[in-house]
Formats: sequence, structure tokens, C-alpha cells
Amino acid sequence: MNDLLAALRDAIGADNVLVGRSDLERYETDGRQHAGRALAVVRPAMTSEVSAILRLAAQHDVAVIAQGARTGLVGAGLADDRGEMLILSLERLSRVVEIDAANRSVTAQGGALLSTINAAAHEDGLFFPIDLGADPSVGGMIAANTGGARFLRYGDVRRNLLGLEIVLADGAGTVLELGGALWKNNVGVDLKQLVAGTSGAFGVVTRATLALQPRPAAQVTALVALRRADAATGLAALLEAHFGTLITAFEGMSANALAAAFAHVSRLRNPFRGPIPPYAVLIELSSGPVLGEDALEQALGEALAGLIDDAGSAIIDIAVDRRDALWAIRHAIPEGLRASGQVVACDIALRRGDVMRFRDEVAAGVAARWPEFAVCDFGHIGDGGLHFNLVWPRAAGALDPAVGEAVRDYVFATVVEKFGGSFSAEHGIGPRNIKHYTRFVPEGVRRVSGQIQQLLAPQRLGRVDFGSTSI
Amino acid sequence: MNDLLAALRDAIGADNVLVGRSDLERYETDGRQHAGRALAVVRPAMTSEVSAILRLAAQHDVAVIAQGARTGLVGAGLADDRGEMLILSLERLSRVVEIDAANRSVTAQGGALLSTINAAAHEDGLFFPIDLGADPSVGGMIAANTGGARFLRYGDVRRNLLGLEIVLADGAGTVLELGGALWKNNVGVDLKQLVAGTSGAFGVVTRATLALQPRPAAQVTALVALRRADAATGLAALLEAHFGTLITAFEGMSANALAAAFAHVSRLRNPFRGPIPPYAVLIELSSGPVLGEDALEQALGEALAGLIDDAGSAIIDIAVDRRDALWAIRHAIPEGLRASGQVVACDIALRRGDVMRFRDEVAAGVAARWPEFAVCDFGHIGDGGLHFNLVWPRAAGALDPAVGEAVRDYVFATVVEKFGGSFSAEHGIGPRNIKHYTRFVPEGVRRVSGQIQQLLAPQRLGRVDFGSTSI
Repeated sequence: MNDLLAALRDAIGADNVLVGRSDLERYETDGRQHAGRALAVVRPAMTSEVSAILRLAAQHDVAVIAQGARTGLVGAGLADDRGEMLILSLERLSRVVEIDAANRSVTAQGGALLSTINAAAHEDGLFFPIDLGADPSVGGMIAANTGGARFLRYGDVRRNLLGLEIVLADGAGTVLELGGALWKNNVGVDLKQLVAGTSGAFGVVTRATLALQPRPAAQVTALVALRRADAATGLAALLEAHFGTLITAFEGMSANALAAAFAHVSRLRNPFRGPIPPYAVLIELSSGPVLGEDALEQALGEALAGLIDDAGSAIIDIAVDRRDALWAIRHAIPEGLRASGQVVACDIALRRGDVMRFRDEVAAGVAARWPEFAVCDFGHIGDGGLHFNLVWPRAAGALDPAVGEAVRDYVFATVVEKFGGSFSAEHGIGPRNIKHYTRFVPEGVRRVSGQIQQLLAPQRLGRVDFGSTSI
Repeated sequence: MNDLLAALRDAIGADNVLVGRSDLERYETDGRQHAGRALAVVRPAMTSEVSAILRLAAQHDVAVIAQGARTGLVGAGLADDRGEMLILSLERLSRVVEIDAANRSVTAQGGALLSTINAAAHEDGLFFPIDLGADPSVGGMIAANTGGARFLRYGDVRRNLLGLEIVLADGAGTVLELGGALWKNNVGVDLKQLVAGTSGAFGVVTRATLALQPRPAAQVTALVALRRADAATGLAALLEAHFGTLITAFEGMSANALAAAFAHVSRLRNPFRGPIPPYAVLIELSSGPVLGEDALEQALGEALAGLIDDAGSAIIDIAVDRRDALWAIRHAIPEGLRASGQVVACDIALRRGDVMRFRDEVAAGVAARWPEFAVCDFGHIGDGGLHFNLVWPRAAGALDPAVGEAVRDYVFATVVEKFGGSFSAEHGIGPRNIKHYTRFVPEGVRRVSGQIQQLLAPQRLGRVDFGSTSI
């Protein structure tokens, strides 16, 4: 190892090869407080340095983990606990290279933060439409192919990815330019599609060009209290038919999730006249200046009021807002759940019409098997995404890790095998869920995926073996 | 060959193995009147038959071409002229399997036509938002990853592709299910992304699930006459900032293209008060019922009238319409050009801000080298796509094919090497442009692409070798 460290110091400078225990600590935990131990951390500042690092690591047969902003939720950006992996931090490759306003695109280095690219795009009235609670790096967003709260209108990172530069983990540190700043480009195998969503296992993204969107001039939100959760499905269809792509979010919240948010953040208040309803939906409309906030608020209020008057309507009450008060409730949920007990998080997706059927069935199944758990689901039901999170309350004592595993196994088996859904909607694959990958992804798909990984990235990069056969 | 034909007759029935010259003819020409000669045509009616055909062809080392509706423009769906290739027609795999209205998705067989899926979706107020002059099959649209006139709002086929079933050309006829009907699903290598845009070379798509969109209730169009083409770039930015995603098309038309349309289709008329302008832009706005056609028309008229009054504005005149009259002008252009002479078509893409600079430079370059050509460009300038088509007028006699090749070489070299653009924006790669693939796609990308093709599809399927090294 000393040979490798010496060679790395020669390649990128001794200051950028960290080995001291206290220096390493900040690179060893992520968004979910998982931790590992690194052999060393290297901090390249240009593509050629990334290439040199990957070559040297291959020569010494040392595994490398590319690391962005450590906001991942599946452990893909962390070392394991053996202290033998090299962390390649992109924190010195974090610059915005270019905003092309006419093309509505930004070119940024792999370690650039979401907040940084949005700050750079602001002056031109543009933004990158991935809306998250965290502030990930460009490379991390590509690795997870993350979605977020406005997927319904703007899609995921893949949809907004125009091009990238990658250093392949092929032992030679080969640099490929994949696509440019073009919206359309059909010239054969689109290799950048293999990079999106593959947990950083194929190479290190040193630069990417992303599409930007015009920042809406007007935005209004409504929180709708429903008597029954299953009314949300029809509400989505009605509002989509009426408002089309003005709808930028359609988020669902269970009563338990709402209660946890209100209990945890004291400045939040229940915006309804009555008690917390069985279910609530947050709707956001966004528009350019053609429809100002007055017009947008009036249109949304009228559309919802029309529904409330319908015979048999499940709508109990409506709160409309132009600012962030309703979003604050939605954003407080994850923290509220963590404050109320131990969270078992399930990032799943279903056909939109199956979300509520799944929810009813699995809530009943969980209650029958593990009555201590509170089902506190919420999420992006407008796109079929659901954070089906369960909370083991403090009053029930410590959660047995085996019980946590068992309940996740049950939820995932039901979503995949009974509903044809996904056990990872927007967090990607990492050590935390590779067990489920091996179980639920068909053997033929894993075999081809592993062969492609072996082809593009035969050296050890990242934590995921896509050819994985052992549970 | 007789052994193969006998085995195919056993596998799918003698009626579905065509060998007679007169039976084969309709499978031997495409949208651009290119022609080849097939050994035979096989017409499977289910996935297991497709699998059997690919296995048998591999055993006999016969190349297979998957063929949909023969609307492709690069020759990828045709046999070559040696009469040794087996055409696998999907015309008996053309059913819509399911419309899931709540999920806004359609599942259809690979040979289903665009018009068929739109007819099936109509009742639920939905449509598949790929807007084309032709009526391709689902598999053909995936193979070309086609875009069309509403890409600006709805994107390409890839963006709307949720899942597919494919029979790999791996010699074993392996069937893979890739994705389901989910909008979000991040569980490793997204293999269906390798199928989109790869000209049918990896396998035969027997079924696909596509996302649908709510059909807009209101639609208005405006044709804007510009004094200078380069004013279109700023106009796009202004209108996007004002109307956001209400804009569903932003199409540019040169004076030559407009003149050809008017000359060819006598019922079309110039909608402007003056003569045909130097350049025109077709703008379409679409909305749900929240903004009816009156409101939409008024908003568009006001926004454009505001611009015409600006000092220095390049807008000469505006025509606004609610029906199809303005689109009819746009749609008449390709036929008008064919009627006026021999067309050299260049399907290119640029950064949006480069479109007009490229146009000026290359129009001058063409005029200097080949003054006979008329530059008759038009296309999807709102997304950077340009049909940079040149017409060799009848009066100039027959076009020397070498001159046609030379002018395309010049146009493509300039778009790729000088502007970082694409030589195939939305038609994909086939025998017609494989020469340019080999020249312009970097060696490293071709090498990896060829290795992936060898991995997934070692038997001979389709016309394209993505590892191609010889021009």
C-alpha cells in the first residue's frame, strides 16, 4: 500500500492524498449515517488526475469508491468497514464550467453541487428541475438517477442528461466523451445511458452537461384533505386532464406522516379546519407569466371547489397557498418520522393506479404481522413513487435488526412479485439493497448487466456487482 | 437454405414464410424508396416464434432484419441487395395489449402502429406524443429513438419508454423483460436504454410499454414572418420565459422551403400580407381546459404583438390560427421539396444558440462550392434539430451522386467538427449513414459499442456494426 500511496502523492500532490484518521472521518459517513473505513482519500482536481488514480489503483488491485456529496441513501458512495478501499472525492472537481442560456444547459464538473448549478443558472431565469431535500453532487445525481418531488413534470436525471465525460474503470483510465450539449443526438449506442443509475460502478463522471428549465414565474400550492386515500388516484387524473403540464407536483401524505411532521416542527400547523385527515395531497401548479399567481390560485381553487361540491366527493377541506407553508409540511415529514422512532424506509414505485391498493393491502399485512409498526407513508404518488416508511415507536423499545429486515423483505416481495412494482424507485442500488437486487432482478438481466460491467469497468470501482448471484 | 426454410415453416407455419418474388416485393422498399432483396420474409405472431426464428437463423448463419412499418429513413429495416437476408416482419405482432388510463400508459406489440396506439388511447383522453409525418411501428420508433415536431415539450421515444420485452440476437433466442409499466425504477443497469436508438441491432422488440400524455383540450398556432432568421433564437427564449411548457412546437422554415410548399400544394396560401418572408417560425401552444382556445389565442396574439411593436423587432407579420392551416404549410414542405428537384437530406442537431450561425455559414459554403443547390432548410429549431435539406433543381439536370455525397460530407463535417453538433438528430444509424458514424463517432466509443453489440447480439441482426472501423 505504501507504494500506491507514494505513487498517488506523485500524481496529484501529497496534500491531496489523505491518510490521517482525523482527516478521513468526514469522508466515511453518508446521508443515512452509515459509516465505513477508507484506506485513504484522494482529491483530484482534473480529469487527467482521475485517470491516473484509476490506473494506479488498478495496478495495485485496490478498490476505488467515487464520492460526491455523501447524500446517497443506499451506501454506494462509502467504503466498507475493512479499511482497504480508496475514496476518490470529487470535492476539488466542483466547478460550473458553462451556462449556455440559449441552449438552456449547464456544463459542470462531477463534484459540482445541485445548489451551485442552480445558483449559476439563476441569473438567466433557469434552474435544474431535480427537487430534493438534499444537496447532492452532479455525479451522485447521475449515479442514483434521482427523481424528486417534481418528477411528474420534469422527469429524472437521465431525462435531463445531455452529455458527460467519464473516466472508465478499465485499468487504463480511458476517458470517453459521451454526447455534447445537444438535446437530440442519435448516433448509435448511447453509452451515457449506462452511466445513469448505475451507482458509479462504470467510471468516474468528471463533467456533465444537463438541460435546464425556465424558472416558473408563478407557483401556487394546495393541500387537499381526503376522507379516503384511494380518492387521490382519481383526483390526479381529473387535475391532469384540467391543468395538463401546469401540475408540477402531486404528493401524498398519510395521517401518520402528517402527525409526525406537526409533532416535530412546532411552527408548523394543521392548515385544515378539522383534525388531521386520513390522507392529504399536496398539489403544485407552476406557470410562466402568461398565468400569474392570482389567476393560477383562482383556477386551482375553483377546480378543487368544484370537486368538493360533487356528491360523494372524498374531499373534506382545502388549503391554498402561494408560498412555502404547505411544502414545509411535506418537507418536515422525513425528520418528523426519525424523531418519532426508528424508521424502516422503503423507496418503492408502482403503477399509478396500484398505489392505493398496495398501500391498503400492505398496511394490513404489516399490522397483522408486526403490530408495533406505524405505517407512515408519503411520497410522489403522482408518478407512482411511494416512500412506504414504517416507524418502530420509541415506546416499543429497540428495533431488532432482524425484524427490520423481515418487514422490508415482506414489503419488497409484495411490491415486486404481486404488483410488478419496483423496490428502488429513485435511490438506486448499493450495499444496503443489493440483497434485494439479487433476489428480484431476473437472472438473465443480472447476467448481461454483469458482463457489461466486466467489459466497461473490470477494475473494482464502487460497491455494486451487477452480476451478483449470491444473496 | 432449404433446410432453414423448412425449419421455419415447421416453426411458424408455411403461410408465414414467404419466398415468392411477388410476395417479397412489398417488404423490400422503405420510406425513401430504398430497396433491397430478401431471401425470405417470416411473419411470427408471438414471442416464442420470434425466439425460434432467431435461433434457427443463428444455426444457419443467416442474417436477420427486423422490420416494422418500413418508414425508416436510414435503411436500417431493409435487406441488402444480395438476397441472402431473412426479413422478420412484425406485421402479425401488431396488437395493443393494454391501455392503463390511471397509469397513463399503453402496452403494445412491437409491430403496432403509432396510429393504432393513438386510436386506442383516444377514448381515455390520452395520446402518445411523438408527432411524425409517417406512421411507424412501436419497434421502429424505438429503433430510431425518433423525436418529431413536439420534442420540445414531450421529448423522444426514449423519454416515453417505460419497459419492453426483447428477444436477444444471442443465438439462443433469449427473451428478456426490461422494466414494466413503471415511471420510476432504478434497479441497476437499465438495459432497455441500449435498445432505444440502436437500429434494431440487439434484438427484436416484441412488446413495449409507453407513457401517454393527456390530450390537450386547446391548441393554437401562430406563423411569424421574420425579417432575419437569426431573430428566431431570441424569440424562442422570450416565448419560453412567458409561456413555459405551454409551448408544444417551435418550428423554423426558410423562404425556399415555404416557396416549395406553396408551389406544390395549390390549396395552401401564403398567410402573410406581404411576399414570402426570409424566414418563418411556427409556434404551437397547447393547454388543458384551464386555458381555453380563446384565452390561448389572445395570450399568444398579445405576446407576439408586444414584440412587433418593439423598436428593432425583426417580426414582419403574424398569422394566428386554431386549426390545421398553418401546420399544413409545415407538413407540405418535404413533399414540396421532392417535387422541386432532387433532395439531399441532412438530419442534424446543434446547440440551440448555434442553429442560425451554422445555417448562415453553411449556406454560404454550399453556395460557393455548389451554386446549383438551393438551401431549403426547415425543422425543429426549438430543440436544436434542423432538416438542413438541399435541393438540386430539375433545371440543373440529374444530380451526380458523387456531388450529393460531397455536399453531405461537407455539411456533416461542419456540423460535427466545427459546431460540436450531430449528423443524425432523429433518424438513427443505418447503411445510409454508417460511413459518417465511422468517421465522426470517436474510436473509443465505437470500440465499446461494438463490444456491447458482440455481447448482447453476436448473431447477425440488422444492418449496423457499431464497432465499425472501415469507412
